[in-house]
Amino acid sequence: MNQISSSILHHLRLSGGFLSGEDISVSLGITRSAVWKHIGALRREGYRIDAVSGQGYRLFSLSGRPVHEEVSPWLTTRFIGRDLHYHELLESTNFSARVLAGTGTREGSVVVADAQSGGRGRMMRSWVSPGGVNLYFSLILRPRVPGIRVPQLTLLAAAAVHQALCSCVPEIASRIKWPNDIMVGEKKLCGVLCEMQSEPDMTHFVIIGIGINVNIGEFPDELRNIATSLFLESGRMVSRPELLASVLNHFESLYEAWLLHDDLGFVLPYLHEYSLVYRRQVIIRQTTGDVCGTVSGIARGGELMLDLDDARTVLISSGDCLLCRQSP
Amino acid sequence: MNQISSSILHHLRLSGGFLSGEDISVSLGITRSAVWKHIGALRREGYRIDAVSGQGYRLFSLSGRPVHEEVSPWLTTRFIGRDLHYHELLESTNFSARVLAGTGTREGSVVVADAQSGGRGRMMRSWVSPGGVNLYFSLILRPRVPGIRVPQLTLLAAAAVHQALCSCVPEIASRIKWPNDIMVGEKKLCGVLCEMQSEPDMTHFVIIGIGINVNIGEFPDELRNIATSLFLESGRMVSRPELLASVLNHFESLYEAWLLHDDLGFVLPYLHEYSLVYRRQVIIRQTTGDVCGTVSGIARGGELMLDLDDARTVLISSGDCLLCRQSP
Repeated sequence: MNQISSSILHHLRLSGGFLSGEDISVSLGITRSAVWKHIGALRREGYRIDAVSGQGYRLFSLSGRPVHEEVSPWLTTRFIGRDLHYHELLESTNFSARVLAGTGTREGSVVVADAQSGGRGRMMRSWVSPGGVNLYFSLILRPRVPGIRVPQLTLLAAAAVHQALCSCVPEIASRIKWPNDIMVGEKKLCGVLCEMQSEPDMTHFVIIGIGINVNIGEFPDELRNIATSLFLESGRMVSRPELLASVLNHFESLYEAWLLHDDLGFVLPYLHEYSLVYRRQVIIRQTTGDVCGTVSGIARGGELMLDLDDARTVLISSGDCLLCRQSP
Repeated sequence: MNQISSSILHHLRLSGGFLSGEDISVSLGITRSAVWKHIGALRREGYRIDAVSGQGYRLFSLSGRPVHEEVSPWLTTRFIGRDLHYHELLESTNFSARVLAGTGTREGSVVVADAQSGGRGRMMRSWVSPGGVNLYFSLILRPRVPGIRVPQLTLLAAAAVHQALCSCVPEIASRIKWPNDIMVGEKKLCGVLCEMQSEPDMTHFVIIGIGINVNIGEFPDELRNIATSLFLESGRMVSRPELLASVLNHFESLYEAWLLHDDLGFVLPYLHEYSLVYRRQVIIRQTTGDVCGTVSGIARGGELMLDLDDARTVLISSGDCLLCRQSP
C-alpha cells in the first residue's frame, strides 16, 4: 500500500466516524480528487469505505489482509514484525526472505504473502497456499549462536504459534507435533520450516517460515483427511492480522529468553504439556530407515528422546514422526 | 577465455611445436586475421606464443593462471572441478559460489578468482588475496546428509589440501590445525571456510572456500610472523593450475568415501598423523570463553577431543585453537 493510501486509512480509523474529503485533503496536502483516487484504491484492496455526500468518508470494515496497517495495531514487539513486507503473491515467503536476508535486512523483518505459488514445507514437500484465507509468513533472524543451536528455533516457533492459538482461538485444543507441526487431533493446522545459512562458528541468518491454515474452508481431496483449519475446527472466521501479530508477540518473548539461555530448558515444560507425541508410541522415519519407540520427552537441545524396545534411550535430531494408533 | 581462443590454445598445446596460421584457420573455420587477433588476446592473458614467419605459431609457455584450460589437463575427477568458473577479480569466491548455488548450479562446480577484493576467513576475518600469486577457490556441493554432518567437510577439505601439498610440494612438512588451517610450523599456509544453507533434515548446498598462499613473496607487516607461502617455504614457484587440480582430485576421492560412511572414521588416521595439535596443550577460544586442555584426538564427528585438567574429556565443535608453547 502506498504512503498516502496508508495515511488516509490511518485517519479514517482514528476518526471512527465520517471524515470530510476536504479535511483529508488539507491534512495530507493533496487535492480532493487525489483523495477520491486513493479511496478507490483502498476499496479495490478490500476496504469497505462509505461515501455520503455532505458528510464525507467512513471506514466500514478493514480488508482483513495481513498487511502492516492492519497487523501493527496488534503488535507489542520491540523488533519482530516492525518491518513487514507484504506481497499479494510470492513463490514462497522463505525464498523471498532468504534473498532479503542476503542483502542485509535487519533482524525481525517479516515477509508475508497472501498467496504462494510454490509454497513448501520440510524436505521440499509442497504447502497448499491459496490466497485470501490463510497465513504464510517468514521471519528473518540473526542470532549470534553456533549453527548447531539453530534447529531449536523450529520448536520455539511452534510454541509461539501454539500460544497465539490459545489466545486468539481458545476454543480449539491444538497440540505440537515434534518437530515442526501444530495439529488438531491428527490433522495438520500449521507447519514450521526453519532454514539457515551458516558457517561452523557463526550463523549468518535464519529464516523461520510459518504456514497456518486459518479460514480455508475446503482442502484438495488428498489432504482432506490430514489437514484442517481454524475455520473448520471453530466454525468461525479468524482475523489473520490479529493472529499474525499474536504469533509475532509470543515469538519475540520466547526468542529473547532463548538468546539468554543455552538451550530450550526454559520452555520444555510448555513443549511437554502441549506435545502430541509425549508418552506415545511413534515411528521416526529417517532417510536411513525407521526407528520405533516411545517418546519419553524432548531434550534441552530440542531432540526427541525415544525409549527403544531394548530399554535404550536415543536422541533423535531429525526425521518424520509417525504416530502409532492408540489402543481404544 | 572465449571458445575460439580456447580451441587455438588446445591446438598449440597438442602440436608441441609450430602450427601454421593457415592450418589453424582451416581447422577452426575462421580467417587468418581472426587467428592473429585471438593469438593477440591469448598473449594479453599471459600466454607466451612465438610467431615465426614461414613456420607459424608456437606455444612457449602457459599463463600459469588457474583457468579451465590449464587446470583440466591435470584433473582426474569425475565431477569436481569439471565446471570451473574463473574470474580475474571477485569480492569473494564463497560469495559468488553461494549465488551460483542458489541458481541450481550442479554439484562439483568450482569458482576460482585470481584476486579477491573482500576475501575472508572464518567469522568474517579478512583473507589477504592479491592477484597473480595464490589460489582462492570455492567448491559447490550438494551432499544428501543432515546439516549436522556438514562441518565435517572442513576437515575433509583440509585433508585433501594436505594430500595435494604432499604430492606437489613434497619438500615441505605441513600440518593440519584443527579445524580449518594448514600450517608450516606455526605459520598459516592455507585456510578453509565451509558455509552451508540448510534446513534441519536437509542440506540445500555447501560451499567450501579454500585459500592457499602459493607464490606470494611478501606479506603485510601484521601477517609476517603468522603467515607463509609455498614459495617462501620451498624457495621455488609452484604451478597454481597443477596444485588446484591436485586438491580437487584428492578431495573428490575423500568426498565420495565420506558420502558412503556415516562419519570421518575412515580418514581419522590421516587427520591424526598430520595434526598440528594432537597430544599438545591448547586453549580453545569460544565466544563464551576459553577452555584449556590437551588434545587427545579428533572424534568421528569431527570434534576435537580435549582432556581437561580435572580428567574429564570434552568434545569441542567449534572455536579457535591456540597452541600453548612447547617446553624446550
